Amino acid sequence: MDGRSQGLRGDRRVTLTEVAKRAGVSRSTVSFVLNGRTDLRLSADTFTRVRRAADELGYSPNATAKTLRTGRSGTVALVSDFIGTTSFANAMVRGVLESLHDADTLLYTVDTQGEPSLESKLLRSLINRDVDGIIYGSMFTRTIAVPELLRNVPFVLLNCVSDDPDTAAVIPDEVGAGATAASALLAAGHRDRIWFVGIFPPGTTGGAAWHSWSPLALPERLQGIDGALAAAGTELAGSVAIADDWDVANGYSSVAKLVASGATPSALICINDAVGVGACLALQEAGMRVPDDVSVMAFDGSPLTTAVRPTLTSVALPHEQLGRLAAQLLLDGTAAPRVHRVPMTLSPGHSISAPSSAR
Amino acid sequence: MDGRSQGLRGDRRVTLTEVAKRAGVSRSTVSFVLNGRTDLRLSADTFTRVRRAADELGYSPNATAKTLRTGRSGTVALVSDFIGTTSFANAMVRGVLESLHDADTLLYTVDTQGEPSLESKLLRSLINRDVDGIIYGSMFTRTIAVPELLRNVPFVLLNCVSDDPDTAAVIPDEVGAGATAASALLAAGHRDRIWFVGIFPPGTTGGAAWHSWSPLALPERLQGIDGALAAAGTELAGSVAIADDWDVANGYSSVAKLVASGATPSALICINDAVGVGACLALQEAGMRVPDDVSVMAFDGSPLTTAVRPTLTSVALPHEQLGRLAAQLLLDGTAAPRVHRVPMTLSPGHSISAPSSAR
Repeated sequence: MDGRSQGLRGDRRVTLTEVAKRAGVSRSTVSFVLNGRTDLRLSADTFTRVRRAADELGYSPNATAKTLRTGRSGTVALVSDFIGTTSFANAMVRGVLESLHDADTLLYTVDTQGEPSLESKLLRSLINRDVDGIIYGSMFTRTIAVPELLRNVPFVLLNCVSDDPDTAAVIPDEVGAGATAASALLAAGHRDRIWFVGIFPPGTTGGAAWHSWSPLALPERLQGIDGALAAAGTELAGSVAIADDWDVANGYSSVAKLVASGATPSALICINDAVGVGACLALQEAGMRVPDDVSVMAFDGSPLTTAVRPTLTSVALPHEQLGRLAAQLLLDGTAAPRVHRVPMTLSPGHSISAPSSAR
Repeated sequence: MDGRSQGLRGDRRVTLTEVAKRAGVSRSTVSFVLNGRTDLRLSADTFTRVRRAADELGYSPNATAKTLRTGRSGTVALVSDFIGTTSFANAMVRGVLESLHDADTLLYTVDTQGEPSLESKLLRSLINRDVDGIIYGSMFTRTIAVPELLRNVPFVLLNCVSDDPDTAAVIPDEVGAGATAASALLAAGHRDRIWFVGIFPPGTTGGAAWHSWSPLALPERLQGIDGALAAAGTELAGSVAIADDWDVANGYSSVAKLVASGATPSALICINDAVGVGACLALQEAGMRVPDDVSVMAFDGSPLTTAVRPTLTSVALPHEQLGRLAAQLLLDGTAAPRVHRVPMTLSPGHSISAPSSAR
């Protein structure tokens, strides 16, 4: 790390004069190129020479001065619990980044691990470094309390909502997703033996690894399912509980138990893709074919759906669109502070067919 | 966004005096609590009152002043191409974050999408905001050119190497991983019909979505495989090319083609888990059992390995450890500037057995 001997900080900051000397131009020319002044006309060659000299010397404009002059620093932060440190919702970061990039705005991403003290430190640190605004996000959809520090800058909630009605938020339309899942099964001919896999056991609100936070996806997907089935004059035949994480192993064991109990579902609606994969494995191991004997519907639309046989039919989370919209709302700043719901669409696989009784 | 009417920036910055007034204490008491002065003795109650008043007002200490006083800002950045915006290497971020957290240091993560102009802007912006150092990472292991701007701060390379020998870097031991994969198959009794799946077609260096960058994993895993087989007096029976991305669909089609060509492998070593899953699907569709007829070995040790049947045996990427070590080297700063290789270990599944000829 020979870089230690150099540096841009404190008294070692490179000056415009040094850049000018290296580029062989005047200080005002350098200021024009690097600080966006508009009172000179320059050749492309001069632009290139100044940029190169600035790069070689490691010149960096003073952020605070720039902020005071332009009123913005051109930097936004995505502050979330676990988005950056887990492999689930990274498409949200991509969506945010792409929208910001179109607006020539940089993105810093920080994860708080859901720890209030770390969150406070990070928020202070970002606000102190003159970010223009903050996108406050959650790895999975849930209700949050807006941190007081957040109210010091423009902010938008991403994949979470607060109980404060005057807050701009972007979340997936989970109720619509539930209705979509149920409607697809109804359309295929299922009706009286549709089960749901993935409620929490009594007294449980969410996985222990995630602070036991209550995911909105569960009640809202169920609300959509119940509504669509009721409109068709039917209801869920039953629900299967999953303790802790919604993963393949827990999906497998809960459905193995259901099958062992003698239940004869015609279709399973699983809370997410991993549980759906586990459900298929349990059904297949019990000698039931998917979808010939039992149809399996899931949610999230993750890459897992295309890695298994049959491929899973799933209602997809619009992570990238959520990120894009949150960034646009923050950049715009004039949008009404309300909850924006982004539609979730059916991602077709081969795990759904007509019920065996209808063949 | 009612936060718009408030703010910490410019002339709206909350002062120590305002915090003192709200907390009902002197300005020097506030300075003591918030700026780490050591020339006063205070009660726990006073500490709490000042902290609460500062939180309520959104007080934020001046970063530059703090940096000049302590010599460090307590913030480090992870600058990478695609780590934050893809769902592959996020455990590296987790490892970095956890090591930094132990040292009371904050982490900003930024993705450059591998675009030099965006990278320059982000590096300038971070250096200008007084980060203490930068971890410069890559989503997959490759050789990079150290950006000139990076040399202005202490830095460590994460999951990439440069041709500059005086650079600290942390990468997985891919050669060792190749040897581990081949040795496991040799130990199971395979010898003369081991194929490799995942070389690039002639004239190709890497996936188009990743700037066609050449992944180090390919030549180094092959080097380890070749070495272990040669030591046992044998060699690969052949190699199968995969154009573009190493995903399930491409693994499936390339192995379907191999099987259709009449090849009779006893074992396949696949470049990653997704290709391994695709290989299993192609073999099974051709009526070959895994592992009874053909053993399948993969690399990465991703969650995919446990979502399929048979579960995949894979040599796991040590992403979290890589992140931890890079952060420790940056924090320490006295480590010799060299390439640190972190071992990759076998993650056992059920896709390996003795060859059918040996049964």
